[in-house]
Amino acid sequence: MDDDVPLILTLDDSGSGASGPLDDLEPEELPNENGGSYDVVNDASSPAAGDCCAQQSSAQHNWEMNYQEAAIYLQEGENNDKFFTHPKNAKALAAYLFAHNHLFYLMELSTALLLLLLSLCEAPAVPMLRLGIYVHATLELFALIVVVFELSMKMRWLGFQTFIRHKRTMVKASVLFVQFIEAIVVLVRQTSHVRITRALRCIFLVDCRYCGAVRRNLRQIFQSLPPFIDILLLLLFFMVIFAILGFYLFSPNHSDPYFSTLENSLVNLFVLLTTSNFPDVMMPSYARNPWSCVFFIVYLSIELYFIMNLLLAVVFDTFNDIEKRKFKSLLLHKRTAIQHAYRLLITKQRPSGISFKHFEGLLRFYKPRMCARERYLTFKALNQSNTTLVSLKDFYNFYEVVGLKWKAKRNREHWFDDLPRTAFLIFKGINILVKSRVFQYTMYTVVAVNGIWILVETFMLQGGNFFSRNVPWSYIVFLTIYGVELLLKTTGLGPVEYLSSGWNVFDFAVTLFAFLGLLALAFNMEPFYFIVVLRPLQLLRLFKLKKRYRNVLDTMFELFPRMASLGLTLLIFYYCFAIVGMEFFAGVVYPNCCNTSTVADSYRWVNHTVGNKTVVEEGYYYLNNFKAVCWIKQLSLFFFHSHTVTLFELMVVNDWYIIMEGVTSQTTHWSRLYFMIFYIVTMVVMTIIVAFILEAFVFRMNYTRKNQDSEEDNGIVLEKEISKEEVIGIIELYKRSSAVTETSQLQKIVLQMDKYGQMSTLFLGRRSRTKSDLSMKMYEEEIQEWYEEHSRKEESQTPLQESAPASNNSLKPLSLRQRSQTVI
Amino acid sequence: MDDDVPLILTLDDSGSGASGPLDDLEPEELPNENGGSYDVVNDASSPAAGDCCAQQSSAQHNWEMNYQEAAIYLQEGENNDKFFTHPKNAKALAAYLFAHNHLFYLMELSTALLLLLLSLCEAPAVPMLRLGIYVHATLELFALIVVVFELSMKMRWLGFQTFIRHKRTMVKASVLFVQFIEAIVVLVRQTSHVRITRALRCIFLVDCRYCGAVRRNLRQIFQSLPPFIDILLLLLFFMVIFAILGFYLFSPNHSDPYFSTLENSLVNLFVLLTTSNFPDVMMPSYARNPWSCVFFIVYLSIELYFIMNLLLAVVFDTFNDIEKRKFKSLLLHKRTAIQHAYRLLITKQRPSGISFKHFEGLLRFYKPRMCARERYLTFKALNQSNTTLVSLKDFYNFYEVVGLKWKAKRNREHWFDDLPRTAFLIFKGINILVKSRVFQYTMYTVVAVNGIWILVETFMLQGGNFFSRNVPWSYIVFLTIYGVELLLKTTGLGPVEYLSSGWNVFDFAVTLFAFLGLLALAFNMEPFYFIVVLRPLQLLRLFKLKKRYRNVLDTMFELFPRMASLGLTLLIFYYCFAIVGMEFFAGVVYPNCCNTSTVADSYRWVNHTVGNKTVVEEGYYYLNNFKAVCWIKQLSLFFFHSHTVTLFELMVVNDWYIIMEGVTSQTTHWSRLYFMIFYIVTMVVMTIIVAFILEAFVFRMNYTRKNQDSEEDNGIVLEKEISKEEVIGIIELYKRSSAVTETSQLQKIVLQMDKYGQMSTLFLGRRSRTKSDLSMKMYEEEIQEWYEEHSRKEESQTPLQESAPASNNSLKPLSLRQRSQTVI
Repeated sequence: MDDDVPLILTLDDSGSGASGPLDDLEPEELPNENGGSYDVVNDASSPAAGDCCAQQSSAQHNWEMNYQEAAIYLQEGENNDKFFTHPKNAKALAAYLFAHNHLFYLMELSTALLLLLLSLCEAPAVPMLRLGIYVHATLELFALIVVVFELSMKMRWLGFQTFIRHKRTMVKASVLFVQFIEAIVVLVRQTSHVRITRALRCIFLVDCRYCGAVRRNLRQIFQSLPPFIDILLLLLFFMVIFAILGFYLFSPNHSDPYFSTLENSLVNLFVLLTTSNFPDVMMPSYARNPWSCVFFIVYLSIELYFIMNLLLAVVFDTFNDIEKRKFKSLLLHKRTAIQHAYRLLITKQRPSGISFKHFEGLLRFYKPRMCARERYLTFKALNQSNTTLVSLKDFYNFYEVVGLKWKAKRNREHWFDDLPRTAFLIFKGINILVKSRVFQYTMYTVVAVNGIWILVETFMLQGGNFFSRNVPWSYIVFLTIYGVELLLKTTGLGPVEYLSSGWNVFDFAVTLFAFLGLLALAFNMEPFYFIVVLRPLQLLRLFKLKKRYRNVLDTMFELFPRMASLGLTLLIFYYCFAIVGMEFFAGVVYPNCCNTSTVADSYRWVNHTVGNKTVVEEGYYYLNNFKAVCWIKQLSLFFFHSHTVTLFELMVVNDWYIIMEGVTSQTTHWSRLYFMIFYIVTMVVMTIIVAFILEAFVFRMNYTRKNQDSEEDNGIVLEKEISKEEVIGIIELYKRSSAVTETSQLQKIVLQMDKYGQMSTLFLGRRSRTKSDLSMKMYEEEIQEWYEEHSRKEESQTPLQESAPASNNSLKPLSLRQRSQTVI
Repeated sequence: MDDDVPLILTLDDSGSGASGPLDDLEPEELPNENGGSYDVVNDASSPAAGDCCAQQSSAQHNWEMNYQEAAIYLQEGENNDKFFTHPKNAKALAAYLFAHNHLFYLMELSTALLLLLLSLCEAPAVPMLRLGIYVHATLELFALIVVVFELSMKMRWLGFQTFIRHKRTMVKASVLFVQFIEAIVVLVRQTSHVRITRALRCIFLVDCRYCGAVRRNLRQIFQSLPPFIDILLLLLFFMVIFAILGFYLFSPNHSDPYFSTLENSLVNLFVLLTTSNFPDVMMPSYARNPWSCVFFIVYLSIELYFIMNLLLAVVFDTFNDIEKRKFKSLLLHKRTAIQHAYRLLITKQRPSGISFKHFEGLLRFYKPRMCARERYLTFKALNQSNTTLVSLKDFYNFYEVVGLKWKAKRNREHWFDDLPRTAFLIFKGINILVKSRVFQYTMYTVVAVNGIWILVETFMLQGGNFFSRNVPWSYIVFLTIYGVELLLKTTGLGPVEYLSSGWNVFDFAVTLFAFLGLLALAFNMEPFYFIVVLRPLQLLRLFKLKKRYRNVLDTMFELFPRMASLGLTLLIFYYCFAIVGMEFFAGVVYPNCCNTSTVADSYRWVNHTVGNKTVVEEGYYYLNNFKAVCWIKQLSLFFFHSHTVTLFELMVVNDWYIIMEGVTSQTTHWSRLYFMIFYIVTMVVMTIIVAFILEAFVFRMNYTRKNQDSEEDNGIVLEKEISKEEVIGIIELYKRSSAVTETSQLQKIVLQMDKYGQMSTLFLGRRSRTKSDLSMKMYEEEIQEWYEEHSRKEESQTPLQESAPASNNSLKPLSLRQRSQTVI
């Protein structure tokens, strides 16, 4: 069928007249016969399906389609999108392209955020922000309709069959349905009912393209759940046993309110897990019989000291395992994506690799912003055999290479190399000075002295308003020193090199702030005084001193995006709980409520304080009352109160059980469930966070230990040389395809080469090292096994692709109709 | 020199008449010429050194000395005693033997305990126990003199040179000296002065033979310290920066007592690390400006959420590394010990291995309680080549094999095999029933139903005295079921097999207790009512259901000794802190003290409670007053209050800063140092404990994953067959050496063989798997590398022993004087 399309491709019809590495492009090329899905549509020649692209059935168009599909495959590989969501025909492709750009993503995100924020305006809501029923219900309906539109685009892209098999989408659709009905009910009834389903609105946010990290976190949490739940059951089991024991032992003591019923006994042992009621819960029985402490000792040792640690160990272990499996599956997924893309880019004539022309076509779709020079450099970097074609084996490195940023290696070592002799010598001197160890350590000393100075100075101050005083001379002295340092470094290294180091940027920022602070002090500009207090941040510079600290900070920065996404995940859980809490417990707790509960004191005491003491503590406990007015405060309070740094710790703060008891005494006993479930969910997420941090650090430490001998690495660097002829060749190629706009930069390179009389230019490709690169190195030996195992599995599954993996040529046996045109 | 000793050994002079594997013992054997150290003494023929053993310079005696020295080497290898403490001559040997038996160890231990407990009797001490100055000072002097005696024995054994190079001993000696002087000063002055050096008394306990585990823990703690301190400095560094920032930001707010001075700011941020003052410390500034919570959020995120986790990661990583290195060094140490021992046991005539006679001689010293049969079985188990000699390669397995417990494999499968047919069939039926899955799951169901029953029953009770009621029928029903199960199992499996499983023992104990409880209820014996409340423990049986739980419990039991030793280590730290606290802060805090501090409320409040509320809370805060009268309570309070389950957690309980502030307000600001250092030390130890539990579980999970396919293991099992001739041969050998008492058991075996007409008996050697075995399997590949590296290192260090490792024969090139007697 492929043979029927015109063989002459406009791009190449000038024949093999040009010289250079690109001149072996034959005039007629055919896509390999297992072409893209969209060609298949053409092949089927169904008029209905062909409306968008079947009309223009030229080979050029086919190639364009192939490029696009290959780019989509590569994107899917990169984003870990499963291939069953791959757009199957031209119509799907259009929908796919519509649904895969930043405008659409932004729409998704803003709709989701709008829906989430609506909770602020709905009753019971923040009074300031409260909107009329009509307004917020209409807004909600509007947002929901946008979501419907998004979903319909997705259905168009996925096809109905795939759409209903895609779980997340189905959940989203059903939540959408429920929300829709509820919104209409609200409009009809003109009043808000108990809408705890609003807690489900989070799913719209989670499903956003930009929240991929959150989805990954959630998946990881769910994957870690089974072993976690096992151990949690163990924990609860022991709790029940101890609750029964405690009830039998301590309930005869009528002055002990903690064990008076089995329920109290259970609840108090649960709270004891968080240690927040520890000494109190023991005291009544301890006062009766000192030996009763044995009960608590054994309970705490087993539950807190042992099982909680076990929980971390299990999650940590699972986490490690998941991380490795995830890495493996992503690696293999990328490999498959590359195979798919490769199959679309080879030609019948030359099945052993991809020519630059097709590679360039792919990159036009895969990375539209890449310039012609970078495309060619990427091609060169991939092409390790230095032939004109990129083989599959080389193409496997696509993802590693495509991220590189290319720069011509400068001939000048320093920025001042072109200056006159005298100036050169001066700057050279500064450069040497700035790079010397003596200079560095002098600066460290200055910073340390400054730190001690600040400490002593601050110690001497005893409160009061520091800003009304004159500018202290020490401030000026140290600032001058830093200014001189900044000046020397900038001139010695050149501004570009100076600012290329994160530490220098930090120095610069801190010095700048200090200077602004000085100005504020000098000109008495009160609003800017806060800048002055940033001075101690200078001390952070001392971290450069020790390698371990540098490592820690590097890891910290590496972890940051992941931590942020974990934080967001936690916030999403909080949102759900806040909605539920708001619906059920809004306004339940107030001063002097709860007189019947064991925590009556706390509420009474607060009220008492309000009466005749400081205003500071006023309303602290009745702030925790789930009134919508403060659910944001509530969130932040919970977030920072009830939070455990670490999984085991469960260090929900001193007060959480007071809130729980207060609410319970005003509602039913079942509301305790809410608090306990909240605690457990928080515990799960926090455990994951701890396990994650542990894993990251232990991984890095292992990595460092394994590569102790290797030098300190500055990311991945690749060097490629391009000769003048090559550049001219590419320019020719682009000119022929009348893409003249792209050649300007290339011509600049030629001009520069002419100017310096060089025959070639060296380019440096650079990118920072990612976790994936580290993992690649760590699991070096295993990766080869995975590949083999994977290709074996593939062979057995899809006999059609039997020769696909690991072999350089012939992803598929070529058709007999293959032309015998020779290359060159 | 060796050639001068008489060649005829009495044991073997009957010549080679007997048959069997033992008859190749030639009449004349000489120890290999690089004989033991004690022979060297003889060689030097110094009359002074020879008083104890040089007189009897027969070969027999030399052999005995060699056996003993080899046994000592093997013991040193096992206990990880360094070889430079090896007794170097006969005098040292005598001292060594004196100092290495349980009587001596017990003396050490009791002296150390006496010294520790003396703190209870010295002022400021528990009034009840207080003794007169004369009494306790005399007791102390007596204990110290005993320690002097112990040290002098050690010096005699080590030699003066080694003695002063042995750090721990030198520390002990200097502490001893200080204690001695102080005790005399106390006697002379007739009053106790501030003796914080009493905190050092712990060293006597730590140095005890029985506290080896504590020493190992301390070593591990010290080894983990450098990276820990690095991160701790990071933590403190950020704390200082934030303290300065906080001071500048919040001190203008005069209603904020927490940041009024830099010192307050530092202390409060330190307390905030433990989250125990969290909401309060934020509230004053939060009330002024809601944005000030950002300061606390950032602080907590960095310090608690990040650096604390980092601390765990670092310790965990270091711990892992140390565990592996420890395993490696112990492995190599044992190997060296085996080489030393081997060199002492081979003869000039047969340098390629150890004969049974010498092996038996070694075991007589190494394991005196082993019977002749076991010695021979051990020999057989080691001897894999089935020759008459154990080569070095075989001998390397010594430690693995010597711990096996040998039992003749029973011919009868069940205990009832010998019973008449009918009885046999009945018991066989019971046996099959008891082992069937149906029976097991029925019992699980019964236990579960019982659990739910107890839960519901307990839930129905609402306090009161449960024991005055009649015996509930459910109790009787379930107890009957358990009784029947117990009976069936005992008869079906036989009592011995039944009790060989830990779970069965547990079942038995719980059922017995339940029965005793029933009796107590039935006969109204009030003091035994507590047994009834143990009923819920039955539920623990449900753990057998799931493999993960079985694993957890197994690991728990495996960890227990190590956990206990860690607990002891922690207690030792507490002792030190308790002494110091007692000396400085005894009686400092009392009701209504501390009115000037920020925690005045807590103290006043307590007093207030005492005045007109429950008695329960009375004196709770003034109990924490470092009065010696309650330092044990103090210990236990601290232990369970201020303890963090996990390293990061640092969950020092709600009240620790109240105690700190109370004490501080009554003494000086410097006393805060005491509390902070205590907190940090606790943190270190708890981190180690968490890392240890993590390591143990992760290791076990990795191990399980690695050996998923292998069956559930029941420890190490070895099978060896002994023929009748062999037994007779051994009996002959023993008879010749006139050790007739040892042959009785052997003769019994012969009789039994005769009875059943067997020509040989099968013996099973069994021991439980240790961590070392698991590590052996985990590091399988690396171990060979270690061995090679080790032998290379040894070669380069000690050219004399060049052929020692890994080769079967000729540890040392044999002397030319070697006789050419052939072995049969």
